[in-house]
Amino acid sequence: KSMCKYTGSFPVSFVCYLLPASSGEEITRGFLQELVNILFTYICKSSQRSSKVLDFHHPHQLKEGLDGFNLNLPDQPETLEQILVDCRDTLKYGVSTGHPRFFNQLSSGLDVIGTAAEWLISTANTNMFTYEVSPVFILMEEVLLRKMQSIVGWSSGEGDGIFCPGGTISNLYSILVARYHFYPEVKTRGMGVLPQLGIFTSEHVITIHTLLYGQLHLTELFIYSHYSVKKSAAVLGLGTENVVVVKCDERGKMIPAELESSIVTAQEKGLVPFYVNATAGTTVYGAFDPLDAIADICHRHSLWMHVDAAWGGGLLMSDRHRMKLQGIERAWSVTWNPHKMMGVPLQCSAILVKKRGLLRQCNELGAEYLFQADKHYDVSYDTGDKSIQCGRHVDAFKLWLMWKAKGSQGFGAQVDKCLENAEYLYDQLQRRTGFELVYKNKPEHSNVCFWYTPPSLRGLPLGPDRDTRLHQVAPQIKGRMMEKGSVLIGYQPLGAKVNFFRCVFSNPATQQEDIDFLLDEIIRLGHDL
Amino acid sequence: KSMCKYTGSFPVSFVCYLLPASSGEEITRGFLQELVNILFTYICKSSQRSSKVLDFHHPHQLKEGLDGFNLNLPDQPETLEQILVDCRDTLKYGVSTGHPRFFNQLSSGLDVIGTAAEWLISTANTNMFTYEVSPVFILMEEVLLRKMQSIVGWSSGEGDGIFCPGGTISNLYSILVARYHFYPEVKTRGMGVLPQLGIFTSEHVITIHTLLYGQLHLTELFIYSHYSVKKSAAVLGLGTENVVVVKCDERGKMIPAELESSIVTAQEKGLVPFYVNATAGTTVYGAFDPLDAIADICHRHSLWMHVDAAWGGGLLMSDRHRMKLQGIERAWSVTWNPHKMMGVPLQCSAILVKKRGLLRQCNELGAEYLFQADKHYDVSYDTGDKSIQCGRHVDAFKLWLMWKAKGSQGFGAQVDKCLENAEYLYDQLQRRTGFELVYKNKPEHSNVCFWYTPPSLRGLPLGPDRDTRLHQVAPQIKGRMMEKGSVLIGYQPLGAKVNFFRCVFSNPATQQEDIDFLLDEIIRLGHDL
Repeated sequence: KSMCKYTGSFPVSFVCYLLPASSGEEITRGFLQELVNILFTYICKSSQRSSKVLDFHHPHQLKEGLDGFNLNLPDQPETLEQILVDCRDTLKYGVSTGHPRFFNQLSSGLDVIGTAAEWLISTANTNMFTYEVSPVFILMEEVLLRKMQSIVGWSSGEGDGIFCPGGTISNLYSILVARYHFYPEVKTRGMGVLPQLGIFTSEHVITIHTLLYGQLHLTELFIYSHYSVKKSAAVLGLGTENVVVVKCDERGKMIPAELESSIVTAQEKGLVPFYVNATAGTTVYGAFDPLDAIADICHRHSLWMHVDAAWGGGLLMSDRHRMKLQGIERAWSVTWNPHKMMGVPLQCSAILVKKRGLLRQCNELGAEYLFQADKHYDVSYDTGDKSIQCGRHVDAFKLWLMWKAKGSQGFGAQVDKCLENAEYLYDQLQRRTGFELVYKNKPEHSNVCFWYTPPSLRGLPLGPDRDTRLHQVAPQIKGRMMEKGSVLIGYQPLGAKVNFFRCVFSNPATQQEDIDFLLDEIIRLGHDL
Repeated sequence: KSMCKYTGSFPVSFVCYLLPASSGEEITRGFLQELVNILFTYICKSSQRSSKVLDFHHPHQLKEGLDGFNLNLPDQPETLEQILVDCRDTLKYGVSTGHPRFFNQLSSGLDVIGTAAEWLISTANTNMFTYEVSPVFILMEEVLLRKMQSIVGWSSGEGDGIFCPGGTISNLYSILVARYHFYPEVKTRGMGVLPQLGIFTSEHVITIHTLLYGQLHLTELFIYSHYSVKKSAAVLGLGTENVVVVKCDERGKMIPAELESSIVTAQEKGLVPFYVNATAGTTVYGAFDPLDAIADICHRHSLWMHVDAAWGGGLLMSDRHRMKLQGIERAWSVTWNPHKMMGVPLQCSAILVKKRGLLRQCNELGAEYLFQADKHYDVSYDTGDKSIQCGRHVDAFKLWLMWKAKGSQGFGAQVDKCLENAEYLYDQLQRRTGFELVYKNKPEHSNVCFWYTPPSLRGLPLGPDRDTRLHQVAPQIKGRMMEKGSVLIGYQPLGAKVNFFRCVFSNPATQQEDIDFLLDEIIRLGHDL
């Protein structure tokens, strides 16, 4: 049945004539068709380089009601025409994260199959709690988790997991499960009966998270590694001061000898180490911690080894790049966000746990009634008691449908392309005047970090004066970018290094011409500073 | 621009010809149009009483690949035609939660505006982290939270909040914030430096959660109240045994005098009470705890009063029913899930906190850099540091768009209708032979609990033999319902009461004829037992 019969404006205005109202079919079809036209126009526009990446307005401007776009909530219903106008305005004043020149975030792109999947999920409107209400989605989740576990390198006899609302929650699960593994009594008796536990993670991102408020133009940088570990430590009652920060080398990789000595020092201070977070793909540099060396240390000290591969996990799909995660198979748990490098629409994050059954034991309530007999199907597929939350959004289907449409090979090719873009940018930066790499080596992931030095600063001697001025360059260029809306890229300082740009590639729509455009635009916007 | 130009099958098969591929517009339009046809057909079918509510298959049947529906993940891409077939199959073997005869869950219905909103959200593909990437959605969230706070009854000077991935996470936030309010040092130092804290909640749902595995046909019953409080206590390191269960009356309402004595007893055992969870709308009975009396006790003992109005919050929209939440304005925090009684697609849950700033103080990292100067807009709109998780799915827009389309009045009318359905069922149960109410009073919420006694049991004397047989009736009828797919309703035991049906109404599509059908169908499926 075609959706196209409906023409003209709505004969009646109000929502109560839509389905499930009797004879609501025609109006519902018309309304949804109009909406899909708006969405399709947006999708096309997102892929056009001539479109703006964003049409920036300050909060007070949007709140005052631009061109009649009124955010306030009415007592009386609006007309369906007005609802469609509201939808158009919502998109108009938003940010086009699918634009080939949106480099601001680890998650970008607008995958048509993934979007289609999310449309289906919302139409099915169910949750991942039990097989009874989500038979198909629950099985798809299981198929995906097993596949991801086998790609990580775990044997078929091991591996468990669950999809979570984002990487921080996935990391939180890993600490929760690790704590329960070593101290199962914590579940009933609480932290009061435990020793003072210590958690270890790389220093590299700690500098970032503390800059949240100052550096919001690059909003995602502090999300993972240190940030999520500290957040989790606060939530779980472990305390942020018991998160031990381990030194990194100049590439941002955790130094194994430093980890070893941190553990010893922490023990001397009375902490009981139990958990090490290794990062596969840091947010700023895209660094991969040396997983095998870290695994050796964890093994020696009997510590839980978690790998936060939220950003780097996608590289496992590529034959060319997966060796960068060498040793991940030795992890006891892994966070992997397909909504980042694999382009799945937000959100899609998985926590994988090597030891089967631990997730359930840690989170279930009521196991004593496990074997009651009046069930009608095999309840081992009911995931409800594996998770903290009960109602879980169906995130797995997006990844499942994209996997069908692309195949493992398609994901691999997509990852390869993003890393080729990073290499192209790396090459260009070395050739062009006024640009300087933050570190000289070829990028391992798709992150490329660099300074732009305007002509007025090029003659200055190195030192604090030049640093102070250079520190202001990236924010000023970014501000101009946002006003102009032509391109979007993040920046931040790191340790002693003043503000620099970080470019990341996760959108397969991006081509070399977009990278050239980015560099040209930075010069256009910044040469007079 | 119409989406209807595209006709015929796909000239090329693979996903790489979709946008953002150059000249991918036509194929993308055709693909999305086909998908929308599938979704629209599903939406229409969901509202037709002649359609099945579900087409049940056991896990092994689905895994074996019914009619070529293959769940496994390929190396090579599938064709776009196959992707559409996969989408059709995914819906075919799922559960139609929008069907007017789906009574299984607190969340049901298929709201066209809410669905349209979710389609837009997934197309926009962004997160709620900062104003920079979600300018419009962040402001909508703020407008919604303020509105909800004013409906709860807080003054304009107070109130804070955030949308969360489900009610359990919202409740977890409430305990997290309460703990921080009384013991801010917990954030950095952990639970080790705190006394043994006690949490109080009603007993009424504890019986339920322990039956998870036995009673999965009614999967949602144990989600809230006790269940989520215990889950949170485990996660936060408080320990489940420090959750004190307070006795309820026969209607399922917490008895204030019992709360008072529980507090004293807990103190004598060395626990330090700090948090009371009152429930506005329990999952089984739909009971409302006496909020004013509980608030008095919390005030007297200086305890944090949380109201879990995940299920009952919707009644605040109705002039006729909002007095059932009398006293909610005295709560220090409130959980309210618009995805339940207000029909917003899953998920949409809010935690509201009376004391402004506490959420941020509790969860932020890096406040010391609050006043750096290189930002380009007012960063007080950046919500990232108010939440545990960083990337948050855009849930607020669904509620916002539905509010525009229905108005406050439309939500009120929707709630009134669901409660009228409950009263109709209540009346019918009293008139029909073979049915018995679990409690005699008129329902306060849309929950109605009842037994069906088949003719063979009606002559039996009351006692353990009859109980044992009656206990098996509901599961058997439910099993037959699932096989037939005509209607879906939950059941569970409670305390000493053997298995009974719980009917809940949250879908405005349900009419009196559906309630008649439900009772007729129970007789049809159960009269021979």
